Amino acid sequence: MSERQSRAAILCVGDELTEGRTLDRHGKFLSELLTELGATVDRISLVPDELDAYRREFLDLFPRVGTVIITGGLGPTSDDLTREAVAEAAQVELEFHEDIWEWLLNRFPHRKISDTNRKQALIPAGFEVIPNEAGTAPGFVGEVDGCTVVALPGPPRELQTMVDRHLRSILGARFGVREEEISWATTFMVPESELEEALQRHGAESLRWGTNTEGYRILLRLRGGDEPARQAFFTRLRGDLGAERIVEGRAEIGEVVLNDLRRTGRRLVCAESCTGGLVAKLVTDVPGSSEGFWGGFVAYSNTAKIGLLGVSEQTLADTGAVSPETAGEMALGALERSGGEAGIAVAITGIAGPEGGTEEKPVGTVWLAVALDGRVLETRHVFLPRDRDRVRRWSAISALLLVREALSEVA
Amino acid sequence: MSERQSRAAILCVGDELTEGRTLDRHGKFLSELLTELGATVDRISLVPDELDAYRREFLDLFPRVGTVIITGGLGPTSDDLTREAVAEAAQVELEFHEDIWEWLLNRFPHRKISDTNRKQALIPAGFEVIPNEAGTAPGFVGEVDGCTVVALPGPPRELQTMVDRHLRSILGARFGVREEEISWATTFMVPESELEEALQRHGAESLRWGTNTEGYRILLRLRGGDEPARQAFFTRLRGDLGAERIVEGRAEIGEVVLNDLRRTGRRLVCAESCTGGLVAKLVTDVPGSSEGFWGGFVAYSNTAKIGLLGVSEQTLADTGAVSPETAGEMALGALERSGGEAGIAVAITGIAGPEGGTEEKPVGTVWLAVALDGRVLETRHVFLPRDRDRVRRWSAISALLLVREALSEVA
Repeated sequence: MSERQSRAAILCVGDELTEGRTLDRHGKFLSELLTELGATVDRISLVPDELDAYRREFLDLFPRVGTVIITGGLGPTSDDLTREAVAEAAQVELEFHEDIWEWLLNRFPHRKISDTNRKQALIPAGFEVIPNEAGTAPGFVGEVDGCTVVALPGPPRELQTMVDRHLRSILGARFGVREEEISWATTFMVPESELEEALQRHGAESLRWGTNTEGYRILLRLRGGDEPARQAFFTRLRGDLGAERIVEGRAEIGEVVLNDLRRTGRRLVCAESCTGGLVAKLVTDVPGSSEGFWGGFVAYSNTAKIGLLGVSEQTLADTGAVSPETAGEMALGALERSGGEAGIAVAITGIAGPEGGTEEKPVGTVWLAVALDGRVLETRHVFLPRDRDRVRRWSAISALLLVREALSEVA
Repeated sequence: MSERQSRAAILCVGDELTEGRTLDRHGKFLSELLTELGATVDRISLVPDELDAYRREFLDLFPRVGTVIITGGLGPTSDDLTREAVAEAAQVELEFHEDIWEWLLNRFPHRKISDTNRKQALIPAGFEVIPNEAGTAPGFVGEVDGCTVVALPGPPRELQTMVDRHLRSILGARFGVREEEISWATTFMVPESELEEALQRHGAESLRWGTNTEGYRILLRLRGGDEPARQAFFTRLRGDLGAERIVEGRAEIGEVVLNDLRRTGRRLVCAESCTGGLVAKLVTDVPGSSEGFWGGFVAYSNTAKIGLLGVSEQTLADTGAVSPETAGEMALGALERSGGEAGIAVAITGIAGPEGGTEEKPVGTVWLAVALDGRVLETRHVFLPRDRDRVRRWSAISALLLVREALSEVA
């Protein structure tokens, strides 16, 4: 592949982007995809809905990059100009696709498709249609002066569906990468440097990896080797990092914990202080979570810890609200108050800041406890000296990882 | 101001952006600022850390726009190239600023400033330094071929602090807008079309407005007129939209509710089903929230509603979990179980989907209840036919707005 062919660019079109009304996420999503396929992204441009803006970008990009992905500008209104701009650059006409129009008319039986939508059946001559199963505007792909030009609609759900169902394989073929050659894993609360060392330690000649850090979560993609080789690699990583901190596939922590709960037939109850409902929120983000989640307490104040969870006043007076003793009593109290309905309880108490820290217990000090079968299985100290938002988020994740550990022991 | 002078562009530099590892938020933040000042943003470009990328951008932008803001590339390492690229374009040398170096050495008494950091004291000759109170790399501003060039560091907290403390007034002066000419308001759960109509109805000749929609929240900025005229306008809007749905300034819902709670001397307890902890999370996002927040229950399953909140089995059997009766009993139960500690309770029960909807109670059906002084003050039905995430988010916000309403009645 020539250097030009390996270069790519992304063009995101819309006044809402350049006026700062909408945060663009397509640039990141598509550049990640292109990078994963081995392309080098030369520029991501956000430009207004103006024909001149397209012309300027095309003039610069088409001669020097091999792939341009355009997002937006495929709606039915007069300021949607992607079709016109691409047809002009390719020096072709726009063709009306009767089959797209028929499909549009039948797509939403209860929604009126107006004549202005006819525009969405126009495709530059010689371009291939990319179906849009999630919306009304199909995309298209074709060549202009030796550059592959892809046009996708702006609404995120439509774009993502089209990428997953069609574009990945179109571009994969172009860059010589097959989808089955890539495996994914997700780590939780593994520092980047620790993961990098583990990868170095267990990696093999034939394997290449890339990581994508999103706060407490790292997505790890693995290419090369064959499926068994990648599996063996994951097994070694799991042994190194601890099974609760790494799972195969692209996963959310809520899903992963719910799977463990379902597998072990236990329902979770949580007792939260500093996380203030975040643990419950992360688990109930997942549809159908009632199967593995029973309920929770947000015992933010000391009187709530006493009243809601039966933490003893003595314990609070002797050891403070942020202590292994209080965390343990919170977990046990939550378990008891579920009346046998919940099979495992987790408790979190800590100092999220910015106020409330002391020399002895600085901001970021957190105690976790997990209880099951009528007793406290473990209490754990974690120290997360960060801002309020991260102390809360990271201690919530740490609590869920403790649940995973506990469940693996009873399974 | 000439057309060129009113045009602006933003250049965000970093391999992490074009490789899809980091989501860029600076483009949105800065284009919003520029738009607010009356500039037209012509392009937001995300490019890798390569001198050629800067050259290409500068060649295109400097002759046709009046302002370019660059973010990133001001770190101490060899791939941080903003200083070099700007100096090259301006055909000036980089000057070592002894005072910046002194400041850097004294800035972090406990942190070693290495010799590589000396680079951060280099500024293109003739450019003005923009101080960085939140980090190590100062920014700079100057002219290249009649174009104002601003360079800011990439770390979000540093950039935002510098914009708030320095860049707003630098650019404000440039675009002839003074900060005191702008007022802000925030609306919650007001549909865009309803707000637009209210703005049209109450607007005056001298006032111009812009809106920025972020899900359930719209930031409204108002320019022109004088302070009393803008105040009078807000008063009219408040009368129209309802005082609980609009507040002055740029505000988060958690803060706003906590202010009401503090003002009325009542602490909140919440009883959540479908929102699964989100209401508690939104309130406890705010530092110092224990002053106004007592605690909460996540009663996700029916047995949790019975066990935790004392909802009667009969009510659940007769009216279902999603009903005004269940919501009312949840709120009352939460209030009672706080043992007089909480002065107001809110309950949320609904069908967040995607499963669980029926013909009679489709996905998006939500019942809210608010209780105080030992009785249910109000139950309210809201219907939010959206995806799971939005049903949960919007019903949490609706619940907090109901709390605001209730507090305004007892105040």
